[in-house]
This record gives sequence, structure tokens and C-alpha cells, in this order.
Amino acid sequence: MREVAIIGVGSTPFGRMEGSGIIELAVAACREALAESRVPRRQVQALYLGNFVGERLASQGALAGLLAGRLGLTGIPATKVEGACASGGIAFRHGVLGIALGLYDFVLVAGVEQMTTSSTAEVTAALATAGDEEREIRVGLTFPGAFGIIMREHMARYGTTREQVGRVSVKNHGLGVANPKAQFRKPVTLDEVLGSRLIADPLRLFDCPPISDGAAALVLCPADRARDFHGKPVRVLGSGHATGPATLWEMTDLTSFPATVRAAREACAMARVTPADIQVAEVHDCFTIAEIIATEDLGFFPKGEGGPAVEDGSTGLDGRVAVNPSGGLIAKGHPVGATGCAQVYELVKQLRGEAANQVRSAEIALAHNLGGAGVVSTVTILGKL
Amino acid sequence: MREVAIIGVGSTPFGRMEGSGIIELAVAACREALAESRVPRRQVQALYLGNFVGERLASQGALAGLLAGRLGLTGIPATKVEGACASGGIAFRHGVLGIALGLYDFVLVAGVEQMTTSSTAEVTAALATAGDEEREIRVGLTFPGAFGIIMREHMARYGTTREQVGRVSVKNHGLGVANPKAQFRKPVTLDEVLGSRLIADPLRLFDCPPISDGAAALVLCPADRARDFHGKPVRVLGSGHATGPATLWEMTDLTSFPATVRAAREACAMARVTPADIQVAEVHDCFTIAEIIATEDLGFFPKGEGGPAVEDGSTGLDGRVAVNPSGGLIAKGHPVGATGCAQVYELVKQLRGEAANQVRSAEIALAHNLGGAGVVSTVTILGKL
Repeated sequence: MREVAIIGVGSTPFGRMEGSGIIELAVAACREALAESRVPRRQVQALYLGNFVGERLASQGALAGLLAGRLGLTGIPATKVEGACASGGIAFRHGVLGIALGLYDFVLVAGVEQMTTSSTAEVTAALATAGDEEREIRVGLTFPGAFGIIMREHMARYGTTREQVGRVSVKNHGLGVANPKAQFRKPVTLDEVLGSRLIADPLRLFDCPPISDGAAALVLCPADRARDFHGKPVRVLGSGHATGPATLWEMTDLTSFPATVRAAREACAMARVTPADIQVAEVHDCFTIAEIIATEDLGFFPKGEGGPAVEDGSTGLDGRVAVNPSGGLIAKGHPVGATGCAQVYELVKQLRGEAANQVRSAEIALAHNLGGAGVVSTVTILGKL
Repeated sequence: MREVAIIGVGSTPFGRMEGSGIIELAVAACREALAESRVPRRQVQALYLGNFVGERLASQGALAGLLAGRLGLTGIPATKVEGACASGGIAFRHGVLGIALGLYDFVLVAGVEQMTTSSTAEVTAALATAGDEEREIRVGLTFPGAFGIIMREHMARYGTTREQVGRVSVKNHGLGVANPKAQFRKPVTLDEVLGSRLIADPLRLFDCPPISDGAAALVLCPADRARDFHGKPVRVLGSGHATGPATLWEMTDLTSFPATVRAAREACAMARVTPADIQVAEVHDCFTIAEIIATEDLGFFPKGEGGPAVEDGSTGLDGRVAVNPSGGLIAKGHPVGATGCAQVYELVKQLRGEAANQVRSAEIALAHNLGGAGVVSTVTILGKL
């Protein structure tokens, strides 16, 4: 397999992007990434696009072909992949594979979602399609409900405290302040988190990510050509992609997502690193408790130690591993199909030394994207070239 | 690149599959394909799934991960791709690439759609997401409308007659009679086609495919291992995947789809064949006129000769090239995300000599899948191993 590098990144701000259609959002991110990479358009050979609920919330399917057209790339193979909130991570993986396996030399990868033009009820129903409609969702479960149950189990099993979980929100909102792409740029206190509106007991409003519009894009090429296009290329060291149980009742352990564990193992093996080698990670904090579980499933901390790790600052900017320096899904925002690509965008900035919340020691970085309540996960490991 | 073979196929009947959920449909097709291939489940390394409107019509996203779980394949990377009505063809291509490039040895590919549980208005709105919502669909165009305009242009430009176009329906309904998987198994006369209800002038009811449920699945492995699993493996000779203009106003020629032309050129080059080498084809007759255009774009007949070719029997079972011996989308049915895989299913049966409407000379076969009004297309060329 050939080594793969990222030579250009782009992203819209996340939030309510009034007046921008879903394709315009994707176009903006792609144009920025292409411009940065200095790859001429005629050299782009393929497009992979992550999108989850575009058909429902933006009445737009066939998005990859449409996006190729709007970018002046009509003709090239363009593929939309959908794996719920992990759609962006799956798109990125396919771009990487296309180059690693020698099929293409230049690939554009993007993720996009438009959500704020729909009502909260419509968004909740659309996101619930990530669950098993026939076997779980139809009886009334939603994702806040599922993660409320998961949080309760983590607290009961490991003694994780409500305060520890709340500190994820305090940390991530605090980090979002400096990120120009973040939807929320205002710090919150632990009291504000614990006093915010109850959503699905014990989950409260500030344990949840916002409804967001946004897009992110990346340009990939073989590592041995990367320096012709960018002064600080980033190398893709490892990639993992795995599935897991789709419903709570099929999970043997409500406090761990096997898809994350498997994807991380694959990515680490490919990259020849261990979790201890990673200084910075963007993980899928679709709820506060999900960040704690991710830091355990990814091997940063032993099972049950994720809560104390937040409390003692181990996941802070100067901690053992800086987790979600972008502000994460909770503060930066979560345009679901874009998130997996946006995580890679943020880590490329970290490895270039250009991040808003720069992790000084950043040499090896990890992105973790999760679909539904663990039905699918991707893990990507990045390093400097 | 390694040679790829198809060693197992499965399909539900197409039509109104009352009582079967979308995942059950996919499971049924996959189980049949896996059983036929005799590949043990633990050896399946990846799943690619084509699906278009599942999130809207079946409230089900994340389908690839869910399907992997129901099949007892939890853990493997599972990817849903969506490219409107070409979703199945794109899924098949990715399965082929995964093996050709050495990433996997055994891949399961499937396509599925559930449509009959929704109203015709809901189905029409969901299918319209294949168009450009912002720039064309919002003003009122639907796909029957678009293909009505295209048909009118083909008739004006080339003198194609209403009767010639109608004969596509007569031929395909006639072929559907013998196909046990077909939704319509009743012959129709030219008078019945020309007298059927007007849908979008000049398109009439019998120029259109039905609303269908269904799924199809295929098991792939490297060609050099195929005979260990099936006595009559089928070889994938070529694969093409291309995009084209997404809207009518961006098309420079309303009577040709550049995505088809480009995908066919790529597939033929890879297979080292010309259109003249092909004896049997399943092409994307989403409307009668689309079959005529496909036979021209694929190079079976010169531009403008597609109409006369139907009339003189050149596309019949014993013609120059047998087109849609399955009955095509018009008679067999069109569960949109499944169609691309179902076309390959039918051609595998042809190359094994097991088809309901067997083409005696079948040595090289072509499958053509189209999304929207040409925004994306895949072409696959198959031969005996």
C-alpha cells in the first residue's frame, strides 16, 4: 500500500448557516481545500462525500454527483457514503484507500450536512434513522434516550459521577471559545451544565451537541508527491472501520462500543502505534458520556477511568492526551455527515501547528467517528510527514 | 489488479413484498447469495450496500451496519453508498475494487429498497431528491417530467416514433412473463401501451416502471479461488463509474447521458472489448425512452438508431444484442437501490445458462445503471470464467 498524505483542508464555520444550501456549503469547504492544496481541478480523479440526512432534511440525494458538477469536476467517479454520524469518517477512509491501493493519485473528500432549516422534531426523527427502526426506534427510543441509559449504566458500574460527566461539557465549551469554526464560543460552568434543562435523565441540555449546518473537505495524494503541493503535509498512518451492535438490547456491555474498539485496534496496528503514542484526539462526543466512553474504548484510559481522567485534567489541552481541542461536537457543532471530515480538518491544523487551541506536543493524532449508538465507527491516525 | 469473480447470487422477487421490512428483504437476498457461494460467514470481510431512499420511505439509515448485524457479520466494515438509482451499481463497483486491489478476499454486495409501503406522492417526492432540489426540482420538475422532455427531443431530433418507443414496453413486458422475480408477468400490446394513461406527455403509464420492493445480493472473491466455491463462476471483466450533468439545463444534448458514455468507455477499455462483443445487456430502462438512449450511449447502435433497432428486433432475445431479457426495470420492477445489483444477478444467470429468458449466445454481458437524469452511471462487463 502507498503512503497517503493530506495536502489541503477546508471547512465552513459550523452553526446556523442561513442562506446557504447544502451543496453550497460543501462547495465552500471543497474550494478552500482545493485552493490550499494547489491541485488543479483537472487532476482530481475521484470524490467521496459523507452525508447522512440530506434526503430528509434538505430533500437532496445524489449529492456526490451534484457536488462534482458544481465544482467543475463533472465526469469523475463521485460516491456518497452514509453510515449515520460516521458518514464523514467512512468517506475519508475510502479516499485514503483509493490512493493507498493505487487507484487514484488525487482524491477530494468532503462531508456535509444542513440541519438548521428543519424543526427540532424533524431533526430528531431524521437522526433516529441511525437506530434500528423495526426493533428499537419504533417503540419510542431516541438517541438522547439511548445515551441517557448508557450514562446511567456507566455511573452505576464504575462510580462515574454526574460532575465528572459534566466536566466534559465545561472543557469542550471552554475550548470552543477560541475556535473560529465553532458554533458555541462561550464558556459554561459546571453549575450551568448541571442546572441546564433535563433532556433524557440524567442527560441535560449541555450534555448534548447542537443542531448544526456545516461542511469540511480534504485533498489527498500519495505521500511521496505531497511536498510538491503543500509545505506541511500530514501523513495518514492508520485507518480502521468496523461495525457493532445497532441496538441497546444487542449490546453485551452498555458502557463500551465494540465498533470503536475494533476500528481503533485496526488503525493502531496499521500505524504501528499504541494509544500511549497519541498526544491529541478528536473523538465523537455526541453526548458528554460518549467522550468518556471513547477515551476508554480507544485505550487512552482503562475502563471506568474515563470519568476521573476528565476531572484530573488528563484530557485537557496540557493533559496526557488532549481530547477535542476543537471544542468537539458539543461546542464546535455536529453537522452529522460533516463531522468525520471536520475532525480530520482539526487534526491537520494541530499537526501543522496552526490550531486555535494548539497542543504543543502534537506529533501523532487520532480521529474517532461513531455512527448511531455504535453501529459503525471509524478511527484514523495521522502524523507529520 | 486481481481478477474478480462472482460466486453466489441471490434476489427476492420484485414487487409488493407485504410484511417484509427493508432489512429483512436485504437479509433474504444476502442469505441466498451466501448459501449459493458456500463461503462461510466468518470469511466475509466487507459489505457494500446500495440504497437510495431508505431514510425517507423506511425511516432507516445506517443500513449497511444494521444489515451486517442481522447477517451475523457484526464487526466487518460495512458501507452504504447512495447515488440515486445507481446506488446498487456503485456498491457493486466498490466490492469489485476491494477484491481487485487486494484489500479483501470475500466481499458481500447487496442492494435494497422498500417503496410500496409509502404513497405514490411520497415515493415521487423521495425519488425527486435525485435531481437538483435548489436549481430544478423546486420549480416543479419530476423524473417522469424530465424523461417526457427527453423523449420529445429524441423524437424531434431523430424521427424516433411514438410506436418505436412503445415497443420497448411491449418487449420488456413480454420478457417479464417468464421471469419468476418479475413484478409484472403479463404481456401488453402496443395498443395498450399507446392507450395507457398519460403521465408526462408523451410518456404514458406503460412507459414507466412500477413502484417496487426488493433486494439483490452478490458474493465476490478473487477469480483464482472462484472454482473452489461455485461450478460456474462469472468473471468481472470491466467496471466504469462516471458522473454527468445533474439537470436538464446543464445538458448540452438532451438525447444522451455523458455519464453513461464515459462509464461504458472505461468499462470496455478495462475489459478490452467493444460494444460489438456484447450479446446480452441489462440496461437502465427507468422509462422506455431511457432504454433507447442507453443502447445508443453504450455504443450498440449509432445515435438515433435506437428506435429502429427496437422495431426491427435487434434488441430482442435473438437480436444483435438482447436488451433487458429480465423484463428490465419496466416489467421486472425497480426497487431503486437494488436495481444495479439485480442487473448483475440477471446477467450471472445468463452467463451460467440459467436465465428464464436465456440468450443462447451469451458470452459477454453488460450491466448499465443510471442515477437521476444522468447525474451518475455505472457500467459493468461480465464474462464466463
